[in-house]
Amino acid sequence: MQERARTTRRSLLEAAAQLFAEQGYAGTSVNDISARSGRTSGAVYFHYASKEGIALAVVRDRFATWPQLTARYADAAVPPVDRLVALSYDIARALAEDPLTRAGARLWAERATIDAPLPDPFALWTAAATRLLAEARHAGHLAAHVRPAPTARTLVRAFFGLCSLTEALEGAATVTDRLTDWWQLTLPSLRAAAPGGQRRDGEPAGEWAPTPVSRRNSRPS
Amino acid sequence: MQERARTTRRSLLEAAAQLFAEQGYAGTSVNDISARSGRTSGAVYFHYASKEGIALAVVRDRFATWPQLTARYADAAVPPVDRLVALSYDIARALAEDPLTRAGARLWAERATIDAPLPDPFALWTAAATRLLAEARHAGHLAAHVRPAPTARTLVRAFFGLCSLTEALEGAATVTDRLTDWWQLTLPSLRAAAPGGQRRDGEPAGEWAPTPVSRRNSRPS
Repeated sequence: MQERARTTRRSLLEAAAQLFAEQGYAGTSVNDISARSGRTSGAVYFHYASKEGIALAVVRDRFATWPQLTARYADAAVPPVDRLVALSYDIARALAEDPLTRAGARLWAERATIDAPLPDPFALWTAAATRLLAEARHAGHLAAHVRPAPTARTLVRAFFGLCSLTEALEGAATVTDRLTDWWQLTLPSLRAAAPGGQRRDGEPAGEWAPTPVSRRNSRPS
Repeated sequence: MQERARTTRRSLLEAAAQLFAEQGYAGTSVNDISARSGRTSGAVYFHYASKEGIALAVVRDRFATWPQLTARYADAAVPPVDRLVALSYDIARALAEDPLTRAGARLWAERATIDAPLPDPFALWTAAATRLLAEARHAGHLAAHVRPAPTARTLVRAFFGLCSLTEALEGAATVTDRLTDWWQLTLPSLRAAAPGGQRRDGEPAGEWAPTPVSRRNSRPS
């Protein structure tokens, strides 16, 4: 693709994501996307064929960045459960602040009104969580009953419900605190208990607080 | 209110709930409600003033039944945490099967498109969960770090996310199994550990399976 075409596609995509996040799918017209991006409506139809087409592209583009995001959590020096927790804070921040992620979540919520099948926006999160839990299991950090794949599925759905309901009921600024409440309730069950009812590292259950992976690397692109 | 007016209001409300649950708010017109209920559009406007009015009535009506539902979970002979778990299965079943509950959840998801402020549909669940957790705490059944009100808030949001995403991704028939996965991951953290790393009653963490309160009483009205 020519550089100029790529720039046009990108500016249309970002304008559409902002509008979908702010006004929803039904509340956004091709004319709105044209006005916000400073391009013509013809450019929208030329590059994305339809409003459905640009909505799908917004959701897919967001997916394209998850592998990069999760690659940051490959540092074997950090225990895998800690990397999983750090990843959840980064995704929560993206859900609160990043227009493409916000647009993806809102388009998902409004999927019944979109005349195109959206890809499952949770598949990549679940795959990343499964991988980290499998590493943790291998390292002996998980409680005996915790199986990586079903646990990842459960965690991702509960996590997404927690973030989206918290934002709706209390505002985005509260999400990090509520996520900490949730991990405090969830981690003791997840982690292997050392003999004597103490947690790994001698931490008592529930006293845990998140220690994010290096902040330098934690911002989603 | 006259008996005949009450019957009319009820049939309009039930028709509207079915339609909102099936087609969503934007996809349902006053004419649809009139056709489904066999009443005139004039009856909709007379009793509920507008489509917004009947949507609010659907959400409020659902609320009116929660106190009855939660009153069934007052049996002091059953441990309060077990009652909380049983209540969650009943709410999950209502979310999967009961048109008024389904309509309430869908109207909540589509609240941005409704020109009226919907009441918070989670406040009553959270109040019921807080009460049961406070009872459990009083009875010494909770882990030391579990405070009833914030824990109830966390549980309700994670629970609702789990149920709604599971239904969306896998269908309503799977919700009960996923809810069991979630409780297995959540209950060990919630419950007081007996000395020696064993759970209360000598159950090892994670071996727990739900024992619903009497099925006779478990169907929401």
